[in-house]
Amino acid sequence: MPELRKDPVVGRWVIIAKERAKRPHDFIVPEEKTKGGFCPLCPGHEYTTPPEVLAYGRPPEAPPNSPGWTVRVVPNKFPALRIEGELWKEGEGLYDKMNGIGAHEVIIETPNHHETLSTMPVDRIVQVFWAYRDRMVDLSRDPRFRYVIIFKNHGRAAGASLEHAHSQLIALPVIPLRITQELQGSKMYYDYKERCIFCDIVRQELKDGSRVVCENHEFVAICAFAPRQPFEMWIIPKKHHSDFRSIDESQFQALAEIFSEVLKRLDAAIPRCPYNFVLHTAPLREPYLEHYHWHFELLPKLTQIAGFEWGTGFYITPTSPEDAAHFLREIKLSEGGQ
Amino acid sequence: MPELRKDPVVGRWVIIAKERAKRPHDFIVPEEKTKGGFCPLCPGHEYTTPPEVLAYGRPPEAPPNSPGWTVRVVPNKFPALRIEGELWKEGEGLYDKMNGIGAHEVIIETPNHHETLSTMPVDRIVQVFWAYRDRMVDLSRDPRFRYVIIFKNHGRAAGASLEHAHSQLIALPVIPLRITQELQGSKMYYDYKERCIFCDIVRQELKDGSRVVCENHEFVAICAFAPRQPFEMWIIPKKHHSDFRSIDESQFQALAEIFSEVLKRLDAAIPRCPYNFVLHTAPLREPYLEHYHWHFELLPKLTQIAGFEWGTGFYITPTSPEDAAHFLREIKLSEGGQ
Repeated sequence: MPELRKDPVVGRWVIIAKERAKRPHDFIVPEEKTKGGFCPLCPGHEYTTPPEVLAYGRPPEAPPNSPGWTVRVVPNKFPALRIEGELWKEGEGLYDKMNGIGAHEVIIETPNHHETLSTMPVDRIVQVFWAYRDRMVDLSRDPRFRYVIIFKNHGRAAGASLEHAHSQLIALPVIPLRITQELQGSKMYYDYKERCIFCDIVRQELKDGSRVVCENHEFVAICAFAPRQPFEMWIIPKKHHSDFRSIDESQFQALAEIFSEVLKRLDAAIPRCPYNFVLHTAPLREPYLEHYHWHFELLPKLTQIAGFEWGTGFYITPTSPEDAAHFLREIKLSEGGQ
Repeated sequence: MPELRKDPVVGRWVIIAKERAKRPHDFIVPEEKTKGGFCPLCPGHEYTTPPEVLAYGRPPEAPPNSPGWTVRVVPNKFPALRIEGELWKEGEGLYDKMNGIGAHEVIIETPNHHETLSTMPVDRIVQVFWAYRDRMVDLSRDPRFRYVIIFKNHGRAAGASLEHAHSQLIALPVIPLRITQELQGSKMYYDYKERCIFCDIVRQELKDGSRVVCENHEFVAICAFAPRQPFEMWIIPKKHHSDFRSIDESQFQALAEIFSEVLKRLDAAIPRCPYNFVLHTAPLREPYLEHYHWHFELLPKLTQIAGFEWGTGFYITPTSPEDAAHFLREIKLSEGGQ
């Protein structure tokens, strides 16, 4: 069983995934995964994954775990956390730990091995976001979970171990420190200003324009004012809501459109750019929050996290967000891209 | 001039190092630095670095910036921050920024290009730590600086851009968020227990033993209870003090000895392991603190920071610290190593 442990000084949780146990020699040569070869996420190979928990696109009479799907969600074969069991918490002297209860799922974004979010049609990206929402709603019913984090690792340098386009979801029994800090920071701002800080960011960025990459009627994509990586972008809904699960039909469409455009621009600016994106949303048990505002953060993986970053929580970026936004806006997209 | 910017939600500072400005195509192919070739840190090439700010080992009559040194400290040729100028802070709508005033120095640990901290004699490691202290004391005199962070990036995967063994120092006009969190966390513990949390960690770890890698009369090296990377180690002085600058002669010797042993063990367990280490110490202007305790944190760079880590501040580690400490203890070191 994996274990969750808390750093006693700063309160950061970590997962010790003992089942993936590594001995020193396992780390010696970081092997490049060969491209091509057998892909467990491709249609026809459904038997190689754990049984699916969701699939779209198949005719109703087709059996589960058969081809014909457009989006498919399966439990991770090598989960960081385990779904079975009661949650226990205990101390070990001054230290705190709990067992690694949680869900770890893989959202297979397309049946086509060579397609990515930047090349697939917008109506299929809509389905990926629907899958995020549906899984989040389903997992909310489990009283053991307090947060569901949805993220994507694209490219080996960004931590992807499989080439086939996929995102991941982890349901956690605790609220992550990073989210707690975001909630606290936006609450402090709200207490002082009686306005949502993200709503203010949207207003200021649209007025200023220098960090705006693109926008549509529901969303704006900006290069973050204080980025951790060059070309870091935030995709923020113009309409205030703290919870991604509140998203409606027309927002799904607009979200897929802006994601498609942002990723096409990034791909054109930096071919094969490795990146991570993460959905930031309120904890599962929170009611509607005036001070918090769901959004996506997209981080290209272009610089190293080294001693300075580990030690300080500071980041050094060689590209200003104004320059990055300028480069991304200047990209000429072919038909359907804008 | 570089710029410091603050994330308005979580309060994290970043440095926009515009002079290192990168356009999108600069990121396309992460080039491997060729080994060998011209090294600007080697003796005889002193003219290629900015003029030194400190050097040990040369006879008193020898001119500065000439060979014959054992440790040499020079300003970074491509600094993330600039030493000249007044500090200004200003707003940009709801955002906060300041100019990038600071010092960025390189501590060249050895004149020998092929030597590392794990292979060099202990008495020369002592000199490296003396250089850390002397530079920190000197920079403390500049009223613009509030924190000096000292760190090392070893190996390309850990962010080192030069092969020749060196550490770095950055003097900052603000206290980094990571240090503030550590100060707050240890203060909370102190307020509740009236004891230093690091002193309690030292006592508990020595009694338990399962995470202890090695110890001497002044220091203990443990695998961290909640590690961010496999084999993460903390090197903690047994005697309480909040400020590294308080270190005395016999502690210097013991610190060099335990570092040498820890790095030899890591090198033997995971050959050519890339790693970062960071000195954690109280801010420059703080008096002696009962609740804080200086120490080093050493992080091998063995797993990727990906979407989950960016989004949550959680880390997933496949090796438990008890297993890691066991592997490291089992290593048989040759003469002089223990």
